Amino acid sequence: MSQTTPTRTESDSFGPLEVRADRYWGAQTQRSIMNFPIGWEKQPVAIVRALGVIKQACAEANKARGKIDEKIADAMIAAASEVVAGKLDDHFPLVVWQTGSGTQSNMNANEVIANRAIEMLGGEMGSKEPVHPNDHCNMGQSSNDTFPTAMHIAVATTARDVTLPGLEKLHAALAEKAEAFKDIIKIGRTHTMDATPLTLGQEFGGYAHQVAMGIRRIKAALPAIYELAQGGTAVGTGLNTPHGWGETVAENMARITGLPFVTAPNKFEALAAHDAMVEMSGALRVVAGSLFKIANDIRLLGSGPRCGLGELMLPENEPGSSIMPGKVNPTQCEALTQVCAHVMGNDAAVGFAGSQGHFELNVYKPMMAYNVLQSMQLLGDASVAFTDNCVAGIEANEARIDKLMRESLMLVTALAPTIGYDNATTVAKTAHKNGTTLKEEAINLGFVDAETFERVVRPEEMIGPK
Amino acid sequence: MSQTTPTRTESDSFGPLEVRADRYWGAQTQRSIMNFPIGWEKQPVAIVRALGVIKQACAEANKARGKIDEKIADAMIAAASEVVAGKLDDHFPLVVWQTGSGTQSNMNANEVIANRAIEMLGGEMGSKEPVHPNDHCNMGQSSNDTFPTAMHIAVATTARDVTLPGLEKLHAALAEKAEAFKDIIKIGRTHTMDATPLTLGQEFGGYAHQVAMGIRRIKAALPAIYELAQGGTAVGTGLNTPHGWGETVAENMARITGLPFVTAPNKFEALAAHDAMVEMSGALRVVAGSLFKIANDIRLLGSGPRCGLGELMLPENEPGSSIMPGKVNPTQCEALTQVCAHVMGNDAAVGFAGSQGHFELNVYKPMMAYNVLQSMQLLGDASVAFTDNCVAGIEANEARIDKLMRESLMLVTALAPTIGYDNATTVAKTAHKNGTTLKEEAINLGFVDAETFERVVRPEEMIGPK
Amino acid sequence: MSQTTPTRTESDSFGPLEVRADRYWGAQTQRSIMNFPIGWEKQPVAIVRALGVIKQACAEANKARGKIDEKIADAMIAAASEVVAGKLDDHFPLVVWQTGSGTQSNMNANEVIANRAIEMLGGEMGSKEPVHPNDHCNMGQSSNDTFPTAMHIAVATTARDVTLPGLEKLHAALAEKAEAFKDIIKIGRTHTMDATPLTLGQEFGGYAHQVAMGIRRIKAALPAIYELAQGGTAVGTGLNTPHGWGETVAENMARITGLPFVTAPNKFEALAAHDAMVEMSGALRVVAGSLFKIANDIRLLGSGPRCGLGELMLPENEPGSSIMPGKVNPTQCEALTQVCAHVMGNDAAVGFAGSQGHFELNVYKPMMAYNVLQSMQLLGDASVAFTDNCVAGIEANEARIDKLMRESLMLVTALAPTIGYDNATTVAKTAHKNGTTLKEEAINLGFVDAETFERVVRPEEMIGPK
Amino acid sequence: MSQTTPTRTESDSFGPLEVRADRYWGAQTQRSIMNFPIGWEKQPVAIVRALGVIKQACAEANKARGKIDEKIADAMIAAASEVVAGKLDDHFPLVVWQTGSGTQSNMNANEVIANRAIEMLGGEMGSKEPVHPNDHCNMGQSSNDTFPTAMHIAVATTARDVTLPGLEKLHAALAEKAEAFKDIIKIGRTHTMDATPLTLGQEFGGYAHQVAMGIRRIKAALPAIYELAQGGTAVGTGLNTPHGWGETVAENMARITGLPFVTAPNKFEALAAHDAMVEMSGALRVVAGSLFKIANDIRLLGSGPRCGLGELMLPENEPGSSIMPGKVNPTQCEALTQVCAHVMGNDAAVGFAGSQGHFELNVYKPMMAYNVLQSMQLLGDASVAFTDNCVAGIEANEARIDKLMRESLMLVTALAPTIGYDNATTVAKTAHKNGTTLKEEAINLGFVDAETFERVVRPEEMIGPK
Repeated sequence: MSQTTPTRTESDSFGPLEVRADRYWGAQTQRSIMNFPIGWEKQPVAIVRALGVIKQACAEANKARGKIDEKIADAMIAAASEVVAGKLDDHFPLVVWQTGSGTQSNMNANEVIANRAIEMLGGEMGSKEPVHPNDHCNMGQSSNDTFPTAMHIAVATTARDVTLPGLEKLHAALAEKAEAFKDIIKIGRTHTMDATPLTLGQEFGGYAHQVAMGIRRIKAALPAIYELAQGGTAVGTGLNTPHGWGETVAENMARITGLPFVTAPNKFEALAAHDAMVEMSGALRVVAGSLFKIANDIRLLGSGPRCGLGELMLPENEPGSSIMPGKVNPTQCEALTQVCAHVMGNDAAVGFAGSQGHFELNVYKPMMAYNVLQSMQLLGDASVAFTDNCVAGIEANEARIDKLMRESLMLVTALAPTIGYDNATTVAKTAHKNGTTLKEEAINLGFVDAETFERVVRPEEMIGPK
Repeated sequence: MSQTTPTRTESDSFGPLEVRADRYWGAQTQRSIMNFPIGWEKQPVAIVRALGVIKQACAEANKARGKIDEKIADAMIAAASEVVAGKLDDHFPLVVWQTGSGTQSNMNANEVIANRAIEMLGGEMGSKEPVHPNDHCNMGQSSNDTFPTAMHIAVATTARDVTLPGLEKLHAALAEKAEAFKDIIKIGRTHTMDATPLTLGQEFGGYAHQVAMGIRRIKAALPAIYELAQGGTAVGTGLNTPHGWGETVAENMARITGLPFVTAPNKFEALAAHDAMVEMSGALRVVAGSLFKIANDIRLLGSGPRCGLGELMLPENEPGSSIMPGKVNPTQCEALTQVCAHVMGNDAAVGFAGSQGHFELNVYKPMMAYNVLQSMQLLGDASVAFTDNCVAGIEANEARIDKLMRESLMLVTALAPTIGYDNATTVAKTAHKNGTTLKEEAINLGFVDAETFERVVRPEEMIGPK
Repeated sequence: MSQTTPTRTESDSFGPLEVRADRYWGAQTQRSIMNFPIGWEKQPVAIVRALGVIKQACAEANKARGKIDEKIADAMIAAASEVVAGKLDDHFPLVVWQTGSGTQSNMNANEVIANRAIEMLGGEMGSKEPVHPNDHCNMGQSSNDTFPTAMHIAVATTARDVTLPGLEKLHAALAEKAEAFKDIIKIGRTHTMDATPLTLGQEFGGYAHQVAMGIRRIKAALPAIYELAQGGTAVGTGLNTPHGWGETVAENMARITGLPFVTAPNKFEALAAHDAMVEMSGALRVVAGSLFKIANDIRLLGSGPRCGLGELMLPENEPGSSIMPGKVNPTQCEALTQVCAHVMGNDAAVGFAGSQGHFELNVYKPMMAYNVLQSMQLLGDASVAFTDNCVAGIEANEARIDKLMRESLMLVTALAPTIGYDNATTVAKTAHKNGTTLKEEAINLGFVDAETFERVVRPEEMIGPK
Repeated sequence: MSQTTPTRTESDSFGPLEVRADRYWGAQTQRSIMNFPIGWEKQPVAIVRALGVIKQACAEANKARGKIDEKIADAMIAAASEVVAGKLDDHFPLVVWQTGSGTQSNMNANEVIANRAIEMLGGEMGSKEPVHPNDHCNMGQSSNDTFPTAMHIAVATTARDVTLPGLEKLHAALAEKAEAFKDIIKIGRTHTMDATPLTLGQEFGGYAHQVAMGIRRIKAALPAIYELAQGGTAVGTGLNTPHGWGETVAENMARITGLPFVTAPNKFEALAAHDAMVEMSGALRVVAGSLFKIANDIRLLGSGPRCGLGELMLPENEPGSSIMPGKVNPTQCEALTQVCAHVMGNDAAVGFAGSQGHFELNVYKPMMAYNVLQSMQLLGDASVAFTDNCVAGIEANEARIDKLMRESLMLVTALAPTIGYDNATTVAKTAHKNGTTLKEEAINLGFVDAETFERVVRPEEMIGPK
């Protein structure tokens, strides 16, 4: 802080501290700023807002049960709902690399809401009167159940708002191309080598199916995410909560977010491990692998324009080279594949961290949340950009596709049931050696006559069972 | 081969080769042995037997459709069923590190079955008469659909026979301990530091829940595994198959194995990507993380016998040290955590390989199968060993557990709702500084009287909501 | 942009675009903003400033060779040096997830420097007169050699300024503790179980040695980083550069940064692969593993205060719990271990991306740079925080250390050379069973007399060879 | 064991056990077989033989110091040298997944050598007379220093005998191709798109440089491997060893193996962490990334034969498809890339395990050794197979290479210094749109005359600075 920034005094059990006067946070937040000057990664906004959801839900429940004076509760609820709405994002300065329970971010929420509520009620910020960050804002809660609850809420809302819409948009575009390209017969490639034909629509249909399954995989990982740790308090027992508390606050949070949250069936597991996060990360990793394959294929199929495969024409979005004039590159494929590789790294980090809980608490919470949320944001965003700026504008180079397909030696496969695998091999190898056509060699070698060849070797009948 | 091993001549389109006379394999298998002298990892037996399942199922279907002479088909079916039964394991010599389509292992199966069937029919091995490894044994098939089908069959059978039974056994043992320990109140630990109490049964209940969820996760990954690529042939189109072929052979394979296999809805995806394998690997990775946490906790809780936490007594299975007499170590925890770390590595390899398909084919098939199957075998086996040799015999050191729990300063948490968080903090800190009890300091500081303290701070009421 | 933000028109080969009037960037930068709305991760500042270094070095070289008019060159040099000094950070808005060559960030630098130089020269921004972003600012350069050069410069400067100083600080603090604790004999623990004694100084000496080796590992990875791709231009050939260009600009960059940069011996490798980055990431990963082990040990040795191992007393920095009054946690260990787990994930991403070059270019450059630089920053920062807020203040709980050590049954190891391994085992097992001392049982069992026991079993002589 | 296998009785502190009479191992080995029925991965042979090296070296040292009767020592040395020579491999039945210290494999070595020496001396196997597995064979040793020493010896010998020779062979073959192809000018490809030209020799020169650097990286990781833990005994202190013991036995091991082993400077680090193994794994991982890139490029450059890039012709080694007659695939590239992906997984496992030491011991030793040794074996073997069966036989399809190169629009880059980047862009874009040549459009657009074009745009002058 510059020496001229106005401050006020806040305090915690470690003593008083000066805090910027224009911020709502208190002493514990400030202490975290001082003790953890590590890196440039802030707590994701989705976590901040999820903490707002929790604080609102708990204040409502405490008010309903008469645990907190109604006026105080209403101020707390109002303050918390400002956090939910993103109005107080600037009051959450903490980085990811803090205590592994996220306690300091939970206290950040408690302090901000307490001070904001105090302000609403005309009190003095920092006084903890009439709203105490622990006794009121944290009532019936512990960081140990609050932070994992925030993680789950943030993941569920990001899935709904970013990741799934992005993937659904991409799926629709791929499916549309599969339909548009359904009559374009092209060479298949296995081992990167010429193989039997298929349609370009079938190829894109495979891509679309991968994305559809990816959406299903993420959705399959959500039920465990919908289970909330809230109510476990310090070690999972629910100490200092009334009976039914977990259920009540889960209901409140479901109402506030519009998502089907429920209370976790086993709170000990919900604090000590984050298998549900690891599971979600694993689903995102499958999606990353799918998208990598798709984007990589598309750039290779679009390679050229003159010296590559050249079957696809990708949209030209920007100059591709600072030195090579006129160059255009598959930059959206590159952004997406970089995202996918990054998501795989995130997943490795999450899997490792998930295994490292000790006793009643896993203390890798902020780091796990950061990685999973980043993966979700990146996959969602990149899917949208890739769809808008690449997939939607892909065109088939039909002339080239047809030319390549007709030259392929692997059309000989259609002959094998008629003349046998070994003879068909001789035909293909001879044509390859001589640079001739399959038809010429099949006839020369005496295996078929021209009419039979024409009848049997028909690409348009090689694209499905018969 | 030593010069004295009797051989016979086999041939393929690349020419003749000598093969050990006491083996059924043919030229392509022999060529693979020569071309890929890499490492010591053989194709897993589960893959070999799954190839038998496929060959049997296809021969049955071809017989039923009249595509193959009945006598020949019956010999092929008999030969294939010997592969299924494990009688011909020694005839599958190939390593994992071969062509990425598994073509050579598919041909290994074709060659073995052809020669064994020829033998049954009184023909000459290597003659391809009257049973041809391609024309008959591979009829309606390609390596490109056969090998991924074998991967899925091998995974599904290993899940049923090894991984799930192992985890279920472990779950039952943990659940039994949770019940047995349900009345033992102990100190909780968060951040590895003293926290509020819970029961030892609750702690083990959390472990049991993790394993139960892990079983669910593996089961949730099975439906995509039950979808079989068979019928896609070379590039996913089903070229050279009759209509309905995929459905028919999937039914046969379901019957042979007793597992609910179905034909894959999109064969292009089923050849070009192995997302279902990546998904399964991801589920195994979650399980690995869970088991790691459990085993790590158990060894720390059992640490000592005199200088550690000492809450648990683990079975003593063997001398622990070659230099320290009388030392006993948590060796089962060590074997299991090593397995878990290894599974995480396998998962990284599988995720990478899964992203690397090109066009119509992913050519990392043998390596992906090897890693997933190894993870499944290891998790299943290690769960059984850990259960039998560790979990089943764990005993609680009740005296020590009780002593530690009663000394804990975190029992003060029960006081906080009565005297407030800040006063409770003062009590705990003072007792910590003075080496005294909470009760002494709470009274000294004037926050409560003895009777109130006794009424409020009761460990047995701190293990749940009230 | 809000509708009221003043703009100017910039253009590239794709046409004109409106750009914020208060920013120096041009059309290609703006186009990248529009085409890649992906995630929240900006190009690291270290990359931006390294681009400044390159542009300054190249402008100097072009000026010296008379390729650029002196007045224009001087303006470019002045503008570039502002980038180096961090004055223009706000003019680099691009995200990591762009084209995989970093072309858009290279053009961002070209555009900013061109416009800033134009401004200095009294021209009209956006006119490309008299300074053209390609023809002048990119003269003798391609993104393909510029961006990997920026990656290496950024890594080398971050190593010098952040990572190595952080680790050296940590090493010094650990070495100091090793010296301070050199006479404190304590129980050793292997397999988490009681083992033979060592000194606390020896234990910290092991930690210090790990960090010392880590520093050496990072330094060993720097020579390959000091090799710069600059001069390879588009595909590594050096097309459109004069002879000796690579050497000249490397010298300039060495002078500007004070680091021993040289031109890469093989430019094809330097563009198409980033093995040097993967190598550096691998070194950082070893360091992450070392720090993880150290931090994890320290929190376990400091566990308690009453129910853990309790051998160390860690500094108390902040309230540890929102619900448990008086709780203090090893939060610096938690921040550090989270960082370490994250670095492992980054490393997995970098290793994957490094393998994915195609032909003459690896197009995962921004993502690889982001991950390596983040790892370096985090390890450096977290080492400092961990040192200042944890290691420096660690104290030994000598009374407890001594008590635990003297109770250990593994002191029996000293007896083994005298009475044999099998008899010593009997002593330890009997004492364990009876809850007695080794001495009592050794005498009772008739293996030694009291005097011999006292002479042989001396912890202070068990901490080294004799 | 079948009921008819003859057995003898062996015993340890846990009691007697029956062991196969035709095997030398004893009770602790047998107990490990019974307690760890996990997986199919045996301790690598390189570990077994390294244990022999250690036992021989220690017996020699104990003999020289007069600690063991000469006759007994000589028998032990003879027995150990049989282990070194691989004569007793069949007597090491243990799996990787055992105690994490490798104690059981150390005892396996002790038991085998004791019994073999007893046999040589005419005693009764299992009697421990006159050679005791602990008191004699393990004298001055602990598993905790012995097993990590075996890890290092096994890694160093495998590097010398397998990994480095394999890579050197590959490097030589790539360098030879670089020379053979040095005059073949071809299209460059960046972003998979047409770029400026280079020679095929330059391309292979980049590959060769990657491998050369890889060899250097592995060698740079060896010095830390040459540092041996032996002498640390139980916790690193060297308890129960005489002064100078570590140095003496390291010298002996250096002599026996011919490798420059030294005693580790810090034994605490050497037992509690395996950073040197993680470092080596990281070096192998860089190599894996390099080889992946090379093999992937080669298969893409050889794709076709008619519908791919078709610049290279790879050797045809075997039939490529069970369904597509005449198909030939880049199977060596596939084996190698699978190996590389697998090595990346191994590296992830090793990095994780390396971070997980507790206090004085890392108990992931067998698993770390298995993964590193497997990676070394696979990279060495696959490099040889890839060289012999692929690289050595690669031929350039010069006609096609020339044709593609001449069609490329990116030759326009040579024009840019003459007509400016923006005009050059117009030329390239126009030619692309019209399907014409650069020359036609450059002249049509009035930027140059024919003569200038011919003079400036010369591929043979675009492959280096000028």
